[in-house]
Amino acid sequence: MLQTMAHGEATSYGSKSRSTRQRVLLLGAGSFASEIADLIDEIPGYSVVAFVESLDRSKAGETFDGLPIVWIDDVLKLASDHVAICALGTTKRSGFVEKVSSMGVRFVSLVHPTAQVSSTSTLGRGTLVSRGSIIASHTKIGRHVVINRGCLIGHHAEIGAFCTISPGANVAGNSRIGTAVYVGMGAIVLNGIRIGDHSVVGAGSVVTRDVPDHVQVIGVPAKIVKEEIEGL
Amino acid sequence: MLQTMAHGEATSYGSKSRSTRQRVLLLGAGSFASEIADLIDEIPGYSVVAFVESLDRSKAGETFDGLPIVWIDDVLKLASDHVAICALGTTKRSGFVEKVSSMGVRFVSLVHPTAQVSSTSTLGRGTLVSRGSIIASHTKIGRHVVINRGCLIGHHAEIGAFCTISPGANVAGNSRIGTAVYVGMGAIVLNGIRIGDHSVVGAGSVVTRDVPDHVQVIGVPAKIVKEEIEGL
Amino acid sequence: MLQTMAHGEATSYGSKSRSTRQRVLLLGAGSFASEIADLIDEIPGYSVVAFVESLDRSKAGETFDGLPIVWIDDVLKLASDHVAICALGTTKRSGFVEKVSSMGVRFVSLVHPTAQVSSTSTLGRGTLVSRGSIIASHTKIGRHVVINRGCLIGHHAEIGAFCTISPGANVAGNSRIGTAVYVGMGAIVLNGIRIGDHSVVGAGSVVTRDVPDHVQVIGVPAKIVKEEIEGL
Repeated sequence: MLQTMAHGEATSYGSKSRSTRQRVLLLGAGSFASEIADLIDEIPGYSVVAFVESLDRSKAGETFDGLPIVWIDDVLKLASDHVAICALGTTKRSGFVEKVSSMGVRFVSLVHPTAQVSSTSTLGRGTLVSRGSIIASHTKIGRHVVINRGCLIGHHAEIGAFCTISPGANVAGNSRIGTAVYVGMGAIVLNGIRIGDHSVVGAGSVVTRDVPDHVQVIGVPAKIVKEEIEGL
Repeated sequence: MLQTMAHGEATSYGSKSRSTRQRVLLLGAGSFASEIADLIDEIPGYSVVAFVESLDRSKAGETFDGLPIVWIDDVLKLASDHVAICALGTTKRSGFVEKVSSMGVRFVSLVHPTAQVSSTSTLGRGTLVSRGSIIASHTKIGRHVVINRGCLIGHHAEIGAFCTISPGANVAGNSRIGTAVYVGMGAIVLNGIRIGDHSVVGAGSVVTRDVPDHVQVIGVPAKIVKEEIEGL
Repeated sequence: MLQTMAHGEATSYGSKSRSTRQRVLLLGAGSFASEIADLIDEIPGYSVVAFVESLDRSKAGETFDGLPIVWIDDVLKLASDHVAICALGTTKRSGFVEKVSSMGVRFVSLVHPTAQVSSTSTLGRGTLVSRGSIIASHTKIGRHVVINRGCLIGHHAEIGAFCTISPGANVAGNSRIGTAVYVGMGAIVLNGIRIGDHSVVGAGSVVTRDVPDHVQVIGVPAKIVKEEIEGL
C-alpha cells in the first residue's frame, strides 16, 4: 500500500476546514521555514499557525509570511493544543527540538501528498518528507529528519535522527546514514555505503566508499576535505 | 494550495472534448517540439493544432506528427482563435517569440498535471513546466521559460525570461538566474547563487559560485570554460 | 494521454481483491527483489506470490518477506496461471529470463501508478518502470528492462533489452542505449548519445560522447576505465 497521507495522528474531525486542522508550530523563522510552511499547508489536516524563534529574541512578536513569530519560552502555553515540526536546514537542531519537546509539545511526522513512502518503511517522530520524494521499501528514517523535495531513498536503508537530506539527493538501498548527517543537493550515495554521525556530503558528490564520523566529503568520487566537523 | 492545472486562462466551456479545447500553436518543428506537443495533449483544455516554422520555408505545408507546419508569416490569420507557446530548446528564441506575439497571438503558460507549482510562486506568460517538475514557494519564473521534465526549483528563487532549464536540473532556494540562461541536464545550482544573463551551465555541473553574464561553466565545481557567449 | 496503469494485460475480473489479481512470480530472491515485490503490490491488478531462485538450490522452500522461494525448475507447474517479471539488478539476467520464458510463463510489463509513460512510447515485454519515473514521447524501451525509481528518459530515445537504469538516471532525448547496458545511479546521458551493448555507466557520470560496446565509463565527463567487460 502507498502511504500518501500525513503520518501524524489524524484529526478527530476529518474536516478540511482550517478550524479543525491540527495547529502546527514550525521551529525556525527563516526562508526555509517559509517554504516548509507552504508545503505543510498542502497536507490535509494540518495548518501552520506560528514560527518559533530560539536565537534572536527581538524577532518575537513580529510576523513572517502573515503568521506570528513566537519566542521559544512562550511555547509552553501552546503545548496543549499545538503540534510541532522542525524547519531548520542545519543539522545542529537537536537542542532546539529537545527543548520544545520538553515543554510537552508533541512532534508530528508529515509527508507531503505527492511524496511516497513504502508501507514497509517507517518514519520517526518529527520527520518531514517534502514534495515528490520517494522512500522505497523496508527503510527506517529516524526522528526529526528533513527529507527535502525530490529525494530518492532506496530500500533497506537507514537514516539517523536529525539528518538533513537536501533536494534531489539519491541514496541507494542498503545504505546506513548516521545521526545528524547533512547530505547535499543531488548527492549520490551508493548501495550499502555507511556514513558516520555528524558528517557532511557536498552537493553533487558521489559517495563510493564508507565515510567516517565528523568529516566533510566532496567530489566525484567523494573525498574527505575536512575533519573534526560537527555537521553543518 | 497546490496548483496542478494549466496556468493559462480556462476555456469558456469546461468540456474536455477536443473541439472545446484551446487551440495551441507550438513555435518550433523539431523533435523537441514533438515532445512538447505530446505533453501538452495531457493538459486538460489544450490541444496542439500546428507547429510554426521560422527558419526553413520549405517545411511549411508539410505535416509533422500528423499536424501541419505553418510558416511564421501565416500565423497572422490564426491570431484570433489560437494561443501559442514556444517549443525550442535554444535560449535564442526571443526574436521568434516577439514576432509571433506582435501578430496578436496570445501566449499561455502551461503546467503539466503532474508538475507542482506552489501557489505562492508565479509563472510569466508563455512559460511551460513539464512532467514531474516541482517549483517551491515564493519563486518567480519569468516569461517564455522552458522548465523541462523532473526539475526541482527551490524557494524564493528567480528565473529570468527565455531561460531553458533542462531535465532534472536542481536549482536551490534564494538563487537568481538571469535572462536567457541555459541550465543543462541535472545541473545543480546552490543556495543563493546568481547566474548572469545569456550564460550556459553544462550538464551535471555543480554551481558553487556566482556566474557572470555571457559565460559557459562546466564541472564539479563549475568553472568558466568559455566567455563572450550568447546563450546556447 | 497519460499511461499510468499497468501495461500488462488487464485481469479478466477488474476487481481489486487479491484473489482476482494476476499472480506474479518474481525472478530473484535478494533485497532488490523485496523492493520490487513491494512496489508491484501498489500496482492494481497484480500480486507477487513467490520469488524464483536460480543459483542456490538450498534457498528453495524457504520464505522471504512472507512469500515462498521457488526453485527455477519448479516454475514449470506454475506456468499456466502465473505471470513473471525479472527483479535482478545485474544485466546478466537473460539466461534466467529465457529459461523461465521457455517454460511457458508469460512475462508482463508493469508501470508503477506514479510513473509516467507517454502514450507515444512503447515498453517491451517483461519491462518494469518503478516509482516516479518519466518516459517522454516517442521512446522505445526494449524487453526485460528495469527502470528504477525516479528516472527521467527523454523523447525519441531507444533503450535495448535487459538494460538496468538505476535510480535517478537522466537519459536525454534522441539517445540510443544498446542491449544489457547498466546505467548507474543519477548518471546523465546527453542528447543523441549512443551507448554500446553490455557497457556500464558509473553512478553520477555525465556521458558526453558515444560509448562503444563492452566498456565501463566513469566521471564528469565520462571516460573509459575498463574494456572487454560483460555488463555488470
